[in-house]
Amino acid sequence: MTDARLAGLAARLPNLRLLTDPADLEHYGRDWTRRWTPAPLAIALPGELAEVQGIVRWANEHGVALVPSGGRTGLSGGAVAATGELVLSLERMNRVLGFDAVDRTLTVQAGMTLHAVHEAAKEHALIYPVDFAARGSCSIGGNIATNAGGIRVIRYGNTREWIAGLTVVAGNGELLRLNRGLIKNSSGYDLRQLMIGSEGTLGVVVEATLRLTDPPPPSQVMLLALPGMDALMEVFALFRSRLTLQAFEFFTDAALRHVLAHGAQRAIDGEHPYYVVTEFDADEASQDAVLAAFEQGVERGWINDGVIAQSEAQAAALWRLREGITESLAPHKPYKNDISLRISALPLFLQEIQALLGREYPHFDVVWFGHIGDGNLHINVLRPENLSEGDFIKQCEQVTKLLADTLQRHGGSISAEHGIGLVKRAYLGSTRSEAEIALMRGVKQAFDPKGLLNPGKLFV
Amino acid sequence: MTDARLAGLAARLPNLRLLTDPADLEHYGRDWTRRWTPAPLAIALPGELAEVQGIVRWANEHGVALVPSGGRTGLSGGAVAATGELVLSLERMNRVLGFDAVDRTLTVQAGMTLHAVHEAAKEHALIYPVDFAARGSCSIGGNIATNAGGIRVIRYGNTREWIAGLTVVAGNGELLRLNRGLIKNSSGYDLRQLMIGSEGTLGVVVEATLRLTDPPPPSQVMLLALPGMDALMEVFALFRSRLTLQAFEFFTDAALRHVLAHGAQRAIDGEHPYYVVTEFDADEASQDAVLAAFEQGVERGWINDGVIAQSEAQAAALWRLREGITESLAPHKPYKNDISLRISALPLFLQEIQALLGREYPHFDVVWFGHIGDGNLHINVLRPENLSEGDFIKQCEQVTKLLADTLQRHGGSISAEHGIGLVKRAYLGSTRSEAEIALMRGVKQAFDPKGLLNPGKLFV
Repeated sequence: MTDARLAGLAARLPNLRLLTDPADLEHYGRDWTRRWTPAPLAIALPGELAEVQGIVRWANEHGVALVPSGGRTGLSGGAVAATGELVLSLERMNRVLGFDAVDRTLTVQAGMTLHAVHEAAKEHALIYPVDFAARGSCSIGGNIATNAGGIRVIRYGNTREWIAGLTVVAGNGELLRLNRGLIKNSSGYDLRQLMIGSEGTLGVVVEATLRLTDPPPPSQVMLLALPGMDALMEVFALFRSRLTLQAFEFFTDAALRHVLAHGAQRAIDGEHPYYVVTEFDADEASQDAVLAAFEQGVERGWINDGVIAQSEAQAAALWRLREGITESLAPHKPYKNDISLRISALPLFLQEIQALLGREYPHFDVVWFGHIGDGNLHINVLRPENLSEGDFIKQCEQVTKLLADTLQRHGGSISAEHGIGLVKRAYLGSTRSEAEIALMRGVKQAFDPKGLLNPGKLFV
Repeated sequence: MTDARLAGLAARLPNLRLLTDPADLEHYGRDWTRRWTPAPLAIALPGELAEVQGIVRWANEHGVALVPSGGRTGLSGGAVAATGELVLSLERMNRVLGFDAVDRTLTVQAGMTLHAVHEAAKEHALIYPVDFAARGSCSIGGNIATNAGGIRVIRYGNTREWIAGLTVVAGNGELLRLNRGLIKNSSGYDLRQLMIGSEGTLGVVVEATLRLTDPPPPSQVMLLALPGMDALMEVFALFRSRLTLQAFEFFTDAALRHVLAHGAQRAIDGEHPYYVVTEFDADEASQDAVLAAFEQGVERGWINDGVIAQSEAQAAALWRLREGITESLAPHKPYKNDISLRISALPLFLQEIQALLGREYPHFDVVWFGHIGDGNLHINVLRPENLSEGDFIKQCEQVTKLLADTLQRHGGSISAEHGIGLVKRAYLGSTRSEAEIALMRGVKQAFDPKGLLNPGKLFV
């Protein structure tokens, strides 16, 4: 502990866990992006709320930048500490603080993993319905920081819909208890909503009160093979009109190849351009409805083949084909695009963008997947082995500029659910107008006048 | 048009409708509160977006305060113009701009009434589910400004949940197109959410893209007579656990007397302290469930009597008992409290507050009703004929201080769905901390540096 500032922090908060080992600095200094070399000042692992306040006050006194940190599964560099920041990891603050059966809310510390939240809800025969593949490692605080979406948005909405209250340490160290679990509260600006999706730039989320709900009825999982992108839109409309969808996820043949190579089991024979994993409420009526929808899709030439899971194990195996994609691509250090549009804008956009990618990335392996029912597409570009990482990213960013322009013309967003962080910062202007960004800067100034909270993320 | 500033505005926007007749100033200068004497400079009725921008720019040049104005059905003085402001009425901007069947969104101008929005949704066999008694006169822009709740929140949430995009004229006249109908959009601070519930103090909402949804299944409407407040909480828990509730509204015997005197028909004989109008999904399973729930409620002594509507006309008659209350009280110039708590906090709070009101208001007629399933209570205090309005309000405000203190101790809100406006401004500190209010001022400064948008509302 050679840094005098850190020694002062340690003296002031004697129980605070502070790490400065190179291995810890590397581990806690980065997220799932691997583009920046971690270089934090130190890692602070507070065990209680008062310590978080103490850290923020100390940071104010010494002008030390802070990077609030959860499970660091982010894909936009939002939790990267590459310029001497103190990483403020919430990972030790991972307890359930309370459950209320009448309000149907669960109050948790921000460092709890999404999986642990799911389990805690299940103990009370309720669910917290936001869900996605990183559930085992991502933290609920990080979910809030990016307004995480995932695979059940079509049925349950984004994280935002499930946050009844937030406890936040503001930029000056003061504690804010925002909305306090109320259902109705029209008493001024909803700062809770402002905090959700602010990527740690407006305050440190330390606790959250989450709404829970009844488990859905039993569901069925189905895998469909489709001949093309047009068919995908048609099948989505068809299934949405006939069934109560819980999820409707698509991926390409290229994605399937990677996930199969990574150990998943093929479930439909032959090669097909597109696949869908869909889950929907299963009751007697839906048995006929699903058959009718499937047959109609086949007749119209929108569906090549399909399989419906006959057991939980089969359902899990079908889901693995979709959920295993991100992990199966990781060794290829993909350049990730996470874009969204109004569903109605997808067909025209897709025509343009497929032409664009074919023209600009002819020699790259491009893997598509995502949440068609939310208008959310993940476009992963894989790095060819013969290309250096620097050159690869440079080439990708050229295309991202074109992609951002196309998105802007179609009214889309450069970040659907990953956040802006460092990765998409240069493209923020494609989604938000200059006037909006000026207002965002004004809000940032009000919340964090010294600019100590996750500086450089979202905007410079 | 003797005012030179107004003459300049009229010259600059030749098609702008500007009213300065005393009758118009009075009509447009107030909302449903009657505490302030309307005294606007003039009324501007823009017919298009560019005129709204022109008005805001003109206001900036001349330092004229603006009061954005919808249906003026507000109950907190949020749309009052009593100090020489220009009223910016959106009432002529009341058209549907577009419907998208794929996105299931309806884009409307802010001056459209809630009823007209309902009708427009119905044309496409969909619903906009936010609903309350003022539907025929309130505007969707005003609903957004207060994050209006109403009678279906238990099933569908508040206005906030249904806003996919907002077009706003900012304090400097610039146009903001916030979120543009996207389902997922994690690209910086969600200024749309900040705008919702900001009571016209951050910008002028001119257009909104509303999410629509499928109509609910057929429903049944039931009136219950209950022996007391404890029973009310028990019956709510019982019905919520057995049925899919669309609404669960309560009112007291005192409220019933007023609405009956105002022309509604009695539906249950005898006198009972509390009544509930509840609406729930009706299918074969629910027929048994409702009977079982009702019988259990009677057995436990929580329900005195009940009646279930056998026709749409009967359902409307039962609903009138609840929805007619506000209008039936209006001649008594009630002092209105619109408070909310976590549902779990209600029983203890109610004990305290009933004792408080009995002690402080022994000579006043106090009428309770509201949305128990949202933790939202409306407490209306009626003015005795022998008391002047000034003295009456003075006495009520003394009690509101005690009410606000009690709310603060129980973690409640001084405004559930009416907003703060002028009426609750002095009590904002009971619901929001000093640190929160300081941040709200910072946000206001960023959006409206000259303080021209609805000044004096929400905070001074």
